[in-house]
Amino acid sequence: MTEISTRIKALAFDVFGTVVDWRSSIIMECEALGRRKGVTRDWARFADEWRGGYAPAMDLVRKGRLPWTNIDSLHRMVLDRLLSEFEIDGLTEEEKDHFNRAWHRLSPWPDSIRGIERLRTRYVVATLSNGNVSLLVDMAKNAGLVWDCVLSSELAGHYKPDREVYLTAASLLGLEPGEVMMAAAHRDDLEAARSFGLGTAFISRPLEFGPQGKPDTASGGDFDIAAEDIIDLAEKLGA
Amino acid sequence: MTEISTRIKALAFDVFGTVVDWRSSIIMECEALGRRKGVTRDWARFADEWRGGYAPAMDLVRKGRLPWTNIDSLHRMVLDRLLSEFEIDGLTEEEKDHFNRAWHRLSPWPDSIRGIERLRTRYVVATLSNGNVSLLVDMAKNAGLVWDCVLSSELAGHYKPDREVYLTAASLLGLEPGEVMMAAAHRDDLEAARSFGLGTAFISRPLEFGPQGKPDTASGGDFDIAAEDIIDLAEKLGA
Repeated sequence: MTEISTRIKALAFDVFGTVVDWRSSIIMECEALGRRKGVTRDWARFADEWRGGYAPAMDLVRKGRLPWTNIDSLHRMVLDRLLSEFEIDGLTEEEKDHFNRAWHRLSPWPDSIRGIERLRTRYVVATLSNGNVSLLVDMAKNAGLVWDCVLSSELAGHYKPDREVYLTAASLLGLEPGEVMMAAAHRDDLEAARSFGLGTAFISRPLEFGPQGKPDTASGGDFDIAAEDIIDLAEKLGA
Repeated sequence: MTEISTRIKALAFDVFGTVVDWRSSIIMECEALGRRKGVTRDWARFADEWRGGYAPAMDLVRKGRLPWTNIDSLHRMVLDRLLSEFEIDGLTEEEKDHFNRAWHRLSPWPDSIRGIERLRTRYVVATLSNGNVSLLVDMAKNAGLVWDCVLSSELAGHYKPDREVYLTAASLLGLEPGEVMMAAAHRDDLEAARSFGLGTAFISRPLEFGPQGKPDTASGGDFDIAAEDIIDLAEKLGA
């Protein structure tokens, strides 16, 4: 237990990569689609490019070059491009929509459910994701994750790392920014959160980008807490 | 099970009166305050007037005579007036704030937790309350209520029965209005929800306003469903 565990009242979790293993989940959904359609492709590359298209698409919104567009729609824009590039034809609109909602069905890392359950005994535990509210709600129900509150960039009309997202979350929770701790596997998210006054917990996710990936790392002094996983975070926060 | 149980995908619950027994809870908090401070008052009247001050205060916001002001602040405006009218002196700012947050600690009706749990096995179950997000989050944690999603008028910047509240909720859930069912013990809430295309479930709460109160009632044809309580609603919706 650290000093910060008495100052903070709520945790706000990044979700993609931090709580759920998007890469393995998307590869599995791709493989299932491939089997149904009788097509073989490099599905790991497909998953990486689908995820890779997401930040540039959000940046179009962040820079005002697209009006507010939720992640479902951004995922769909990227998907339509990838289906063409990977020469995957013959999907009905219904099949494309179902495939696009693979992001609503991502599986949690092995420690996520138990870690969040422990944190909820002592803190308010919310999402704070760029995913839209309905995506996060579907994901939680599908995965058996329980949140005290589903908060999303959608509620601020801005994407992380924009200031409005972090401050809207604190305000909706009725807390000062310093009473909220952002938990994420990504340094840019935590650095933004810290610059707006939130506490920060780094969660190590060495396999987020696969065995060959280059995930962010953090050591002791980088953030308020650096945890091995969410159970370790609960431990460090006395929950 | 009715036809509507296959059309709707989410339930949106009114909270004060429908899910929690605000009157008994507030009277108990008043009595506790009275014991601590050594004052005796007609606490049932105090509770009724506190609740009674809430609709006119919201109407100031709805009519643009007050800028957006959340329920915590509206409750506090009414409380400050009542403390003066009931001649209750000597409360510190901290005591007033704690007392005002009695609305964060309301107790559920006996069927609420189990009924919502059953509904969650088949539907997305959200709040749709004029209470602010942090009030609803605190209440759920305190009472042991589990929601898939905490939705509030606060997210629309409008109070029920304004159209924006109902349509924002459907939009955040990624659903058409007709796929969402409003559940409430109050006819005006349901009539508004219906006029904007939502399904409607009336929940009977004969004791909401106490033994002498005049609660709303509904019979068979008035709304899509008229239920005795939330467990009965779950039953009628096949959950």
